[in-house]
Amino acid sequence: MTRDSYAAAGVDIAAGNEAVTRYQDVMRGWRHAGQLDQIGGFGGLFSLPGDSGRALAASTDGVGTKLLIAAELQRYGTIGADLVNHCVNDILVVNATPLFFLDYLAVGKLEPEIAAEVVRGCFEACKKHNCALLGGETAEMPGLYAEGHFDLAGTIVGLVDLADVPKKDDVVPGDAIVGLASVGLHTNGYTLARKLLDVQIFGDALLAEHPSYYDGVRAIQKVARVHAMAHITGGGLLENIPRTLPENVKAVCEQSRWEVPAIFNELVKRGELGHEERYRTFNMGIGYTLVVPLADAAKAIAAVRGAKVIGWIEARSGDEPRVVIHPARE
Amino acid sequence: MTRDSYAAAGVDIAAGNEAVTRYQDVMRGWRHAGQLDQIGGFGGLFSLPGDSGRALAASTDGVGTKLLIAAELQRYGTIGADLVNHCVNDILVVNATPLFFLDYLAVGKLEPEIAAEVVRGCFEACKKHNCALLGGETAEMPGLYAEGHFDLAGTIVGLVDLADVPKKDDVVPGDAIVGLASVGLHTNGYTLARKLLDVQIFGDALLAEHPSYYDGVRAIQKVARVHAMAHITGGGLLENIPRTLPENVKAVCEQSRWEVPAIFNELVKRGELGHEERYRTFNMGIGYTLVVPLADAAKAIAAVRGAKVIGWIEARSGDEPRVVIHPARE
Repeated sequence: MTRDSYAAAGVDIAAGNEAVTRYQDVMRGWRHAGQLDQIGGFGGLFSLPGDSGRALAASTDGVGTKLLIAAELQRYGTIGADLVNHCVNDILVVNATPLFFLDYLAVGKLEPEIAAEVVRGCFEACKKHNCALLGGETAEMPGLYAEGHFDLAGTIVGLVDLADVPKKDDVVPGDAIVGLASVGLHTNGYTLARKLLDVQIFGDALLAEHPSYYDGVRAIQKVARVHAMAHITGGGLLENIPRTLPENVKAVCEQSRWEVPAIFNELVKRGELGHEERYRTFNMGIGYTLVVPLADAAKAIAAVRGAKVIGWIEARSGDEPRVVIHPARE
Repeated sequence: MTRDSYAAAGVDIAAGNEAVTRYQDVMRGWRHAGQLDQIGGFGGLFSLPGDSGRALAASTDGVGTKLLIAAELQRYGTIGADLVNHCVNDILVVNATPLFFLDYLAVGKLEPEIAAEVVRGCFEACKKHNCALLGGETAEMPGLYAEGHFDLAGTIVGLVDLADVPKKDDVVPGDAIVGLASVGLHTNGYTLARKLLDVQIFGDALLAEHPSYYDGVRAIQKVARVHAMAHITGGGLLENIPRTLPENVKAVCEQSRWEVPAIFNELVKRGELGHEERYRTFNMGIGYTLVVPLADAAKAIAAVRGAKVIGWIEARSGDEPRVVIHPARE
């Protein structure tokens, strides 16, 4: 992997991949009997004790360097929802319904009013999903965080009937890929964005709330069979779509089928970002994807405002890429 | 509350208490039906869907500024166990058995080898408790963390039969308080300790692993009725014992009944820490407490090496303190 703009901005994707490989090595040799195979790794699945038909799904995530923008602009009201919605979407990929959420807020100097604003954001987003805000930890750690700086992470636990967990093998060539529109960067690519954009000028766009796709996905599931889903987070369309596809297919998307929000065009222009780089660093306008039979595609996109068929599934052989995105004519 | 040494070292307990009050305000007005009353707030309880007799217990915690010592000494092998064991103890207070754990590791610059060492520590401690390491998040956030700095937090989910959750009202005057020995600061009081001690000289003592009390508690439960338990974390004996006691009793402890590890005497001497301050900032040698009927106390302490009767429960009236610790003659 070349050291591209994102790496130059300080985020090393190769190091991230190496860490994941090392984690797998660490965990080789023992596995709890209740631990089920991960479907794409968006959320872990754990067999509900005493109930072989259901599983708990859990995911931990953070807001990332979007926090630095919130801190710089002293706008703390939306990052709680960013976090909760991100977590909801992660376990939605395995079709889980949220049960409860716990937050972790770490600060250099505790300002109770700000902390409460952050927690209020978590609470309101939880409430919208009928998800309990079951607990949390607020840690004051002078020396680790600069004054005014803080970190926010969270863990969600949901429930799913195992019969409802998407199975990779249901995905077949000819299926359509439905994309749900993003509203901006969501929670990814901020380290690079902070280098390229003036935070004061682009504050509103940069802090746009990471949406929950829960209602949209449930609406689509009422009218369409869904073979696979992906939450488009770090790694973009290129890395997230394949996580829930079998090896013998590829996703072929056409950029002309959806609009790229203005902020991404600005980032691409200022950063002179190549094709790979833009689709790996940013969501480029698609926040969540669903693979549905072609016959159900029209019903699916009619169920959610802004949903588009962005591509289709094709057979894949040998070492072909797992995602191809045909650029729009510029 | 006076601004004492701990506050001067940068941790503001009053701000922490204010934040908690504000969180309670935020969450007033809506509560998920599955959310059960917290017993002391060590771990949240959530009714297991479809099984009214059992509940999930969950807790999120961090390692705190002990991390800065690990970072300074470049010793990353034990902090994973610090975190997992801390979380295990937190839900053990409501008698829950761990199911799974998820870690959150945030770094300024990702060093895959170090990250894997941290995760290995989590994994090994999970394995000892037959607890799945179900997932985690590693976030690289240049600008939020200095190079070489990192934060580590985690979330545990366990299971408990509701009939086995200790009930505050079982605690009555005359009950004995059994203390399980600590091995050092565990994960609390490090911001102050770092001001008072030379990290290079006291490294081993400062990084001593936060122990799990799981096996000890289970051994005691085989031979003794247990009315209440507490994990002695931030706030020490003074703040943690009362969390699981009814309002109409107080805990009376006698320092002469247990030995204070040398590191605490050093901290007390160097920091000229008063009585309140030492027992609120540090565990002072007791990591976990159990309230048992006096008739069962001898059996309880015989079941775990180093367990001591450290005090007893007395009736409390009006505005009497909820914990009294009689100092040893010096």
